[in-house]
Amino acid sequence: MEKVFASIITIGDELLIGQVIDTNSAWMARELNKIGILVKHRVAVGDVWEDIWQALDEECRQASIILITGGLGPTADDITKPLLCAYFGGKMVVDLPTLNHVSNIFEHILKRPMIERNAKQAEVPDNCTVLKNEKGTAPGMLFKRDGKIFVSLPGVPHEMKWLMTNHVIPLIPNLFHTGFIEHRTLLTAGIGESFLAEMIIDFEVALPSHIKLAYLPNHGMVRLRLTAYGFHQTALVHEMDAQFSLLKEKVKPFLVTDEDIPMELLVGKLLKQKGRTVATAESCTGGYIAHLLTSHPGSSAYYMGSVVSYDNSIKQRVLQVSKETMELVGAVSEDTVKQMARSVLEIMQTDYAIAVSGIMGPDGGTAEKPVGMVWIAVANKQKAEAKLFSFRFSRTMNIELTATNALNLLRTFILTND
Amino acid sequence: MEKVFASIITIGDELLIGQVIDTNSAWMARELNKIGILVKHRVAVGDVWEDIWQALDEECRQASIILITGGLGPTADDITKPLLCAYFGGKMVVDLPTLNHVSNIFEHILKRPMIERNAKQAEVPDNCTVLKNEKGTAPGMLFKRDGKIFVSLPGVPHEMKWLMTNHVIPLIPNLFHTGFIEHRTLLTAGIGESFLAEMIIDFEVALPSHIKLAYLPNHGMVRLRLTAYGFHQTALVHEMDAQFSLLKEKVKPFLVTDEDIPMELLVGKLLKQKGRTVATAESCTGGYIAHLLTSHPGSSAYYMGSVVSYDNSIKQRVLQVSKETMELVGAVSEDTVKQMARSVLEIMQTDYAIAVSGIMGPDGGTAEKPVGMVWIAVANKQKAEAKLFSFRFSRTMNIELTATNALNLLRTFILTND
Repeated sequence: MEKVFASIITIGDELLIGQVIDTNSAWMARELNKIGILVKHRVAVGDVWEDIWQALDEECRQASIILITGGLGPTADDITKPLLCAYFGGKMVVDLPTLNHVSNIFEHILKRPMIERNAKQAEVPDNCTVLKNEKGTAPGMLFKRDGKIFVSLPGVPHEMKWLMTNHVIPLIPNLFHTGFIEHRTLLTAGIGESFLAEMIIDFEVALPSHIKLAYLPNHGMVRLRLTAYGFHQTALVHEMDAQFSLLKEKVKPFLVTDEDIPMELLVGKLLKQKGRTVATAESCTGGYIAHLLTSHPGSSAYYMGSVVSYDNSIKQRVLQVSKETMELVGAVSEDTVKQMARSVLEIMQTDYAIAVSGIMGPDGGTAEKPVGMVWIAVANKQKAEAKLFSFRFSRTMNIELTATNALNLLRTFILTND
Repeated sequence: MEKVFASIITIGDELLIGQVIDTNSAWMARELNKIGILVKHRVAVGDVWEDIWQALDEECRQASIILITGGLGPTADDITKPLLCAYFGGKMVVDLPTLNHVSNIFEHILKRPMIERNAKQAEVPDNCTVLKNEKGTAPGMLFKRDGKIFVSLPGVPHEMKWLMTNHVIPLIPNLFHTGFIEHRTLLTAGIGESFLAEMIIDFEVALPSHIKLAYLPNHGMVRLRLTAYGFHQTALVHEMDAQFSLLKEKVKPFLVTDEDIPMELLVGKLLKQKGRTVATAESCTGGYIAHLLTSHPGSSAYYMGSVVSYDNSIKQRVLQVSKETMELVGAVSEDTVKQMARSVLEIMQTDYAIAVSGIMGPDGGTAEKPVGMVWIAVANKQKAEAKLFSFRFSRTMNIELTATNALNLLRTFILTND
């Protein structure tokens, strides 16, 4: 057994001019890690013949598994297929199963006539293994050379994922004998990265060299990750579990969770476990908390709904915030968020409620209520609690920070009051 | 003048194990394009000394501007600074302005005592130019060698952006004399990529070689982008405008917009221009449409709010969907979404309303109502219209597709009925 490395090459001008954010690579890396493959390098190149060629030359020096995404479409800007054909010295031939598959898609799913350009999708280099793409017209292609494999996949995320899951991941263990990768991640809140580092300095110094510790600060919280590679899975799991227990003990006062899951899922699991429900009343986050909660399957077990009271009239008319409160202390105030939380709890008939109101920027701030000022309330049937936050970032980040902190506030409220 | 290329190196194990998605690079590429710099290569490497060193060696063969993000934190896993010091043969010295700045942050903003680890952030290689980071403790660093520049920036997005905007982008025009990059993007709907390609084949063939045409299919729609590089800005803009007009004319029956903006902003601009307002009633999208609309500053001019009726009881109790409808045809039906749209229009007192109800998966589908089935309604005070959609992707993508299509449906409804 030996360490096996992969490289990911993503192809497309859209990645280099910043028109598209690459989310494929992260997903691919996670799937590869699960079967013991380490991603060593990730490179993005444009739709340029020489640049792609050079990337192939370079990446096969770095890794044994080279995954290539993008550039397989039916239009002239897509050059990956002819390039791979030339790179591996093949010639283009029609792959009959692919041709049937493409014809089928047009006949039965798209229900429109196929044109020559679509039929072209069934042409492949004669020296590759075709990987059938059940989710689209561009097949995956597998090339082998000098004990290394090169796999070309479409850039469309759901097609890439299907091909990875059904073809690429299953074939790798037959070709490479690699070890195991173990990750353990925990989340802390209420302590800065440097102070956390001081707190666990003995642990870090004593850590064996094959286990790496990483600090990942985000949204004002810090995740700690242990990563190890080894050839004996049981021993590795055992060792990692022991080290992770030690680390958890060290950071105990600040520990939020020892699972690598987002805050909304952590809160969701807690609610589900206790058989409780929640609703949200959102002003400045404009539905983002609702979106986070409902982005996970199964959230209907604990999430009932939201009133997004973006306009102040909705706070009064739908959420029954009193005219006096609005006039006296305004929409961004302790009183307002508490009334919003109590109202939505009542309207949605839930056990818990979250309410937020603030100024996300870049405009709308005043000397008294600057951009980044946010009131967050959480409530159950007995009481409502509110906390003032002050963020100083971009609109997007202020919205994300508000959502994460609101969910975390609910989490501690549930743990204290249930 | 000559074409000037940049490379972006992102550093961090979290990028290679898929724990974090890199959004920095896309933003950096867009900013560089605005000042005529082409990004040729983007590479991600782990927190590994040899890998970072090798990436520096390679990227300076590719480009004149090498931007490096990440690995500048105060903890042991961050090795970028000592590495750059060694790479450029310098020695570490304390930068007094940075030390004052870091002390200030701790004294006045964080309001806690500074520890030695934080003070270390003020140490820099003696052969770099320090770029003051007003948003954090890790300074940017500029190195020059053989007419090329290497800039090291923190990986924290808002710190990186501040340093790019205030230091890096302003200094590039003084060091490099480059040309101009022009992009033009339009969005089409209702036609597939291959058919679109056939439709504009004459245009594509006649396009001068310095203008590239790209096809970007997403969410069932296709964007077309023209990109050109040239040394005479006025002539280039003129030529691109002319070609873009030709292209718009060619795709006219399917043209949605000639601006490169997301659908929710397109709808927002239309509403603002007509002085109209909208509200949403969301079941399966769980607040995502509200989130999209409110993620843009100024949306309070046209967006009032949402009722996220994730649970069916909320559809009846808050949105007044009749018991008969729910029992007879169920939550995912034409009747339900029309009633939801009319109700929310009434509750929020808006000119327009959007309502959606569907099954996003992966579970919850039946033979009669499979995963991906979505009803979308749009309404004004006079009438409500509904349309049935059928998506066949992941939960995340089904939610995104529903939102985009709902907003597009409202767009055409407004254009037809206002």
